[in-house]
Amino acid sequence: MTDFFKDISPLSYDPDSTGLGFRHYNPDEVIAGKRMEDHLRFAVAYWHSFAWPGGDPFGGQTFDRPWFGETMDLARLKADVAFEMFELLNVPFFCWHDVDIRPEGDSFSESQRNFEEIVDYLIGKMENSKTKLLWGTANLFSHRRFMSGAATNPDPEIFAWSAATVKNCMDATHKMGGQNYVLWGGREGYETLLNTDLKRERQQAGRFLQMAVEYKHKIGFKGAILVEPKPQEPSKHQYDYDVATVYGFLKEFGLENEVQMNIEQGHAILAGHSFEHELALASSLGIFGSIDMNRNDYQSGWDTDQFPNNVPEVALAYYEVLKAGGFTTGGTNFDAKLRRQSLDPVDLVAAHAGAMDVCARGFKAAAAMLEDGTLEKMRAERYAGWDAGDGKALLESDFASIAAQVVADGINPQPRSGRQEILENIVNRFV
Amino acid sequence: MTDFFKDISPLSYDPDSTGLGFRHYNPDEVIAGKRMEDHLRFAVAYWHSFAWPGGDPFGGQTFDRPWFGETMDLARLKADVAFEMFELLNVPFFCWHDVDIRPEGDSFSESQRNFEEIVDYLIGKMENSKTKLLWGTANLFSHRRFMSGAATNPDPEIFAWSAATVKNCMDATHKMGGQNYVLWGGREGYETLLNTDLKRERQQAGRFLQMAVEYKHKIGFKGAILVEPKPQEPSKHQYDYDVATVYGFLKEFGLENEVQMNIEQGHAILAGHSFEHELALASSLGIFGSIDMNRNDYQSGWDTDQFPNNVPEVALAYYEVLKAGGFTTGGTNFDAKLRRQSLDPVDLVAAHAGAMDVCARGFKAAAAMLEDGTLEKMRAERYAGWDAGDGKALLESDFASIAAQVVADGINPQPRSGRQEILENIVNRFV
Amino acid sequence: MTDFFKDISPLSYDPDSTGLGFRHYNPDEVIAGKRMEDHLRFAVAYWHSFAWPGGDPFGGQTFDRPWFGETMDLARLKADVAFEMFELLNVPFFCWHDVDIRPEGDSFSESQRNFEEIVDYLIGKMENSKTKLLWGTANLFSHRRFMSGAATNPDPEIFAWSAATVKNCMDATHKMGGQNYVLWGGREGYETLLNTDLKRERQQAGRFLQMAVEYKHKIGFKGAILVEPKPQEPSKHQYDYDVATVYGFLKEFGLENEVQMNIEQGHAILAGHSFEHELALASSLGIFGSIDMNRNDYQSGWDTDQFPNNVPEVALAYYEVLKAGGFTTGGTNFDAKLRRQSLDPVDLVAAHAGAMDVCARGFKAAAAMLEDGTLEKMRAERYAGWDAGDGKALLESDFASIAAQVVADGINPQPRSGRQEILENIVNRFV
Amino acid sequence: MTDFFKDISPLSYDPDSTGLGFRHYNPDEVIAGKRMEDHLRFAVAYWHSFAWPGGDPFGGQTFDRPWFGETMDLARLKADVAFEMFELLNVPFFCWHDVDIRPEGDSFSESQRNFEEIVDYLIGKMENSKTKLLWGTANLFSHRRFMSGAATNPDPEIFAWSAATVKNCMDATHKMGGQNYVLWGGREGYETLLNTDLKRERQQAGRFLQMAVEYKHKIGFKGAILVEPKPQEPSKHQYDYDVATVYGFLKEFGLENEVQMNIEQGHAILAGHSFEHELALASSLGIFGSIDMNRNDYQSGWDTDQFPNNVPEVALAYYEVLKAGGFTTGGTNFDAKLRRQSLDPVDLVAAHAGAMDVCARGFKAAAAMLEDGTLEKMRAERYAGWDAGDGKALLESDFASIAAQVVADGINPQPRSGRQEILENIVNRFV
Repeated sequence: MTDFFKDISPLSYDPDSTGLGFRHYNPDEVIAGKRMEDHLRFAVAYWHSFAWPGGDPFGGQTFDRPWFGETMDLARLKADVAFEMFELLNVPFFCWHDVDIRPEGDSFSESQRNFEEIVDYLIGKMENSKTKLLWGTANLFSHRRFMSGAATNPDPEIFAWSAATVKNCMDATHKMGGQNYVLWGGREGYETLLNTDLKRERQQAGRFLQMAVEYKHKIGFKGAILVEPKPQEPSKHQYDYDVATVYGFLKEFGLENEVQMNIEQGHAILAGHSFEHELALASSLGIFGSIDMNRNDYQSGWDTDQFPNNVPEVALAYYEVLKAGGFTTGGTNFDAKLRRQSLDPVDLVAAHAGAMDVCARGFKAAAAMLEDGTLEKMRAERYAGWDAGDGKALLESDFASIAAQVVADGINPQPRSGRQEILENIVNRFV
Repeated sequence: MTDFFKDISPLSYDPDSTGLGFRHYNPDEVIAGKRMEDHLRFAVAYWHSFAWPGGDPFGGQTFDRPWFGETMDLARLKADVAFEMFELLNVPFFCWHDVDIRPEGDSFSESQRNFEEIVDYLIGKMENSKTKLLWGTANLFSHRRFMSGAATNPDPEIFAWSAATVKNCMDATHKMGGQNYVLWGGREGYETLLNTDLKRERQQAGRFLQMAVEYKHKIGFKGAILVEPKPQEPSKHQYDYDVATVYGFLKEFGLENEVQMNIEQGHAILAGHSFEHELALASSLGIFGSIDMNRNDYQSGWDTDQFPNNVPEVALAYYEVLKAGGFTTGGTNFDAKLRRQSLDPVDLVAAHAGAMDVCARGFKAAAAMLEDGTLEKMRAERYAGWDAGDGKALLESDFASIAAQVVADGINPQPRSGRQEILENIVNRFV
Repeated sequence: MTDFFKDISPLSYDPDSTGLGFRHYNPDEVIAGKRMEDHLRFAVAYWHSFAWPGGDPFGGQTFDRPWFGETMDLARLKADVAFEMFELLNVPFFCWHDVDIRPEGDSFSESQRNFEEIVDYLIGKMENSKTKLLWGTANLFSHRRFMSGAATNPDPEIFAWSAATVKNCMDATHKMGGQNYVLWGGREGYETLLNTDLKRERQQAGRFLQMAVEYKHKIGFKGAILVEPKPQEPSKHQYDYDVATVYGFLKEFGLENEVQMNIEQGHAILAGHSFEHELALASSLGIFGSIDMNRNDYQSGWDTDQFPNNVPEVALAYYEVLKAGGFTTGGTNFDAKLRRQSLDPVDLVAAHAGAMDVCARGFKAAAAMLEDGTLEKMRAERYAGWDAGDGKALLESDFASIAAQVVADGINPQPRSGRQEILENIVNRFV
Repeated sequence: MTDFFKDISPLSYDPDSTGLGFRHYNPDEVIAGKRMEDHLRFAVAYWHSFAWPGGDPFGGQTFDRPWFGETMDLARLKADVAFEMFELLNVPFFCWHDVDIRPEGDSFSESQRNFEEIVDYLIGKMENSKTKLLWGTANLFSHRRFMSGAATNPDPEIFAWSAATVKNCMDATHKMGGQNYVLWGGREGYETLLNTDLKRERQQAGRFLQMAVEYKHKIGFKGAILVEPKPQEPSKHQYDYDVATVYGFLKEFGLENEVQMNIEQGHAILAGHSFEHELALASSLGIFGSIDMNRNDYQSGWDTDQFPNNVPEVALAYYEVLKAGGFTTGGTNFDAKLRRQSLDPVDLVAAHAGAMDVCARGFKAAAAMLEDGTLEKMRAERYAGWDAGDGKALLESDFASIAAQVVADGINPQPRSGRQEILENIVNRFV
């Protein structure tokens, strides 16, 4: 045991807690036919919680962690502390990028050796822990070699480096029993169209994703391949802008049955959508996978990656997740950064604990709304005209026939109330 | 002749003009192998220029036009004035919605009769005019019956009404020799997800668009079917969010070879994109059609529909149009509103004249940049690694082979300058 | 009695209500030493609830109210229905603009006569009602004469018209026992700086506000004069951008002790601030007055004027109101529009009822947080260094002395955790 | 001579240049009665151009400069290269933060010694150079000790550290003959209101600024004290939000005659204003000082700090500068970062050269517009009603008298065209 969390005891369910205990998250409580833990499938993000130094564009490191540095010993210490926190929080999952868990080497091969060694170390930790791997991913955006993209780089050598890196990360994810593999294209876009061959870059990205899918099948990885949309930042424009954009991309490259979405609240906001919109759209297109439940400040135009804290918003998101059938391989990852002023170990634990509680409350409200059924009943009634009579046949008809009918029948349709405020009041009964 | 523009003479090319004359737009001047008029294909939007009363969400009508009102006589007067302005400006095209040109009737049939009569009147005007129809479209968003959508309405009768309306508008467009037919789905979206069946509504929209394409072929209309993307306003969310979203939608419904894009600068901005991004993307996907060259205030979150006035921005847009091969059936429509304080007839003429001049300058700069070739040469060099040697074969390979090669070769790719500022300086030599 | 709300009974407190009853708002319940009604001081906005036709920039009227039209009979019918709703909701206050309550006349004098007559009619209604006037205000933005501003118009005649209008509205407010008089400068700004003399317009606005204050004292009106900040829309830029801007304006014209703020959540958002920021700032500057508790969609760049529905957000606002000492003359006005699809009378009642309940929940949470005291204790501890020892004297010192001390003492201050997530968790215990 | 710019020759005016030469900036050309160099007063920002490593929130250093590191030798090398670039560009000014020019020491005293030594080194460089100091400033935001603010920190020791730092920077600026001293409060604001005593922090900031003014007078510094507004980033909210906010702050602390504004285009944009708005407002309030001529991407919500490249926008800014009487102590600083992919020395030179040319074109257009006089003539005519007759006396009147007059005269003011498009066309004749 390290002493990083030395004054903090494992958290448990305590509805009256005024400290770190969970007031709402009770992993074993059965809601809608399943344990809460099995519904929510919480995951800790290794990078923000253990590797992020606290910098922002106008200032450097604020966190002062004993494991910061690029050696294997420090990487193991980081892993030890991480698993101590997983145990304190009793979380069933975690997620990593390659660069979070291993020190950078002087060459591809050295980085690879470091990575393989630390993957084995993590597997050892997992054998003594309940915490599993929700997903692995490759960081193809931080190092300066990726400044002009990874798969979409004008330099084919960087495409090759990226391909080799993803291969290694998929191998490791598979070996660790990961349930998904994620791709986020932070630099797959451009800073200026003036130096960009957009068509070529999209072809490169499409082929890269096909290769990932082919490799998944080759190695027998059964988890899902997930793409995480984001509109901008760090790039001026990123090709995986939002769910609708990625769907078009998947269709273009024949991947719509092979790839699903990892949807982040903050990225949805930055793209001009509500989180629930992105979830509902992915579900309606059959490509819903997993979520990053970290909010964005609505009034900051960059990725603020904050822990969730607004129960009504979270409830609407889980409502869409439940309507989509809940998670299968996916889960609730907190891709969330502590605020850079939250220096202490207790801040790290409290942030996760509070977030888990907010999700638990939101989830319970969502389950209750769905069980109550009023919302779905009202929605169905609104469209009932399409399920019978003339409405039912309409989509099989054609413009000329419809126009003739409109004139012949002298139809004069009248608008009906959309009931928005009443529906919002109903939601407020549950949140 | 009406006396609306009584003090205004036809505009002509005069490089030294300090009044209404064109300082830059010279229709007969040959640039890049074609007359400017044939490149730019300017169109006046009937609705904003002749039907819009000047209201905003906090105030009503400011314009006081002698043709305002819902009678056939006034509709004819409006048409007379419109064609007088087309002649003053010497524009080759105009565009309409059904409701701009005809008075609303008490029933579908009466509106249809009004419409057919005024279409014939306009055809008569066109016979004595050089001005042709760039496109027609149906207004399926202003009347209260469309408050919950047209094709995507929960009420199938409104789908039927909309289908009949589009049929009539397509017939009229065909009869008038229109070069395109446009669909803009201002209410094809939602105000709240709580009352919306997103999947069903997208299916309705997809089928509606298929019907439009089927009807085009049925009547032998040779123009293009264009969809105009916009992210929001009036709806909270509209299904035709941006070019990438519409592309996915077209792929889903098998329409990607049948439908092209009418891209508006203001809508691009509202979706978080630059205008040139949307143009370049549509071109790379093979769905570029036409443009609405009206800018949006970058700092207002709604559609400000202003006449273009920034030459450098316009130049980058036409650069993409030229790289896409220029317009075929498409053109440059000004879907632009006078500011509501610009009350006088001269304001209306000056706004169009200034916009045409801005476009002419931007277009000439774009043509010169393309002829100069430096930008395209630098772009090609940046990607040259993909055109030969290992780069050329890379996209045919697979992760495992690539990874083996990366290790075997010990590659260590180094970043190269993206040259953004130098490229921007080059552009500034031409604008 | 009209029959507009014929199927709706007066609302009462019923914690188990699944219909229109209040689940949380119990006017007589004593919280923090006062009845909830006396804390919250709810007001209905006459304009949105009874005069707004439901249009938006892309569509016209959707509501079809029997009192729409410009006659005195219809104005009285509108007043009758309004007071029926006030009674259904049991609200203690309402608010008006002149143009909401009276028909427009053909001249200033005729409008004035209409206005005086309807003011007397409303006074008659108030004699049989508990509902009082929270504030009156003049609409100096809708009519085309105000298109270039009211007090800031380039035409002095429009300044005069505006002054005369505000005088009449102040007289009426005084006569009706109104508790405040509000000025919102929707057109006091500009569309383009190119035609604007910003310095002159600000002088006109400053003098106009001074005249309002002088007139208040002249007639012995004891209520507060409130200015309502908003950054833009309808203007491109409005001079009363936000609380900080108005404070500078008040200081410039010597009005900081005479004028307070009416702060709207939606306007705060549009100015880039949180609502609680604007409240806290106004309080710290001694100019807090009243609130408009209608939210804005964070993702729409215009005024969406929606009824509040997010309890945690509302709680943070009332927390600042309570810390400011609560309302004196001010109150909670709903300057909120029904969604334009919410056509039915029940939608109007439900929207207000839901909003009142959301406010009641938020207020109770705020009161509990303040009573609990943890937040304020932690805030005080954070700044404790300033209250004793060297810290206490520091602000009386000077750069040279401080610099000498820093060197002499070899100070090396260390950052301390800001505890953001823990504070957010505390808030979540109460909301 | 270092060899950093070894292949680059000093830039000169060459209207036909297709390389690094100035096509428009001719320092000795007399425009509006003064040499262009004396009008524009260009300054290079030491920090972005020589100290910034190229990182962004998702990636680290991309630039690889031989002077990176924290030693005195490297600091001198950096200074040598900087002055070589000043000479290549022939710029009359530069600007610094303390931390840009000196290595960080282990204590305040050691940093101070480093700073004093390098200040002397720079003074030596300046003796052999035409380049003077436009302004100095202290970096009170990057180091972790400032994470919760400098003057507004909850810890008085950090206030003291900050005061001592500014004292040293003012001393150095004075010693180097600097023409201004700038304060930018990047961390003077908050991340969350929950842990913030807004009133107390504003008092600390006000007193700090008073101390700076007192110290200026004490040491006899004749330059201007400038505050640079910015709304957010790095903080969630910064107290110096925009010009209007800072004006209220100055009035509150009695500093409106002592402090002027350093206005940045990018910061204006982030606050929701146009650059020319902020300039016109500062001028009208008598607090205009200097500018940072670096643009922001309108579609990125963070500080993109790009070199200016849009001539029409720059022209409108210089038009306001000229109307304000031009610069006195102020100048045109490029607080602009190279794009992080622009790795080569030539990119650094080209970015500045392009920016200087864009400013020169914009400035010449602004001067021509002012000389032409049409814009100012039309503006004056618009307000002419206020300069004579009833209009002239109106502001001296009162509500009661005005209202009586409105009724007596039966005035019925009519709106007049605002001429926006015509004004925009006029501008386009010059840009």
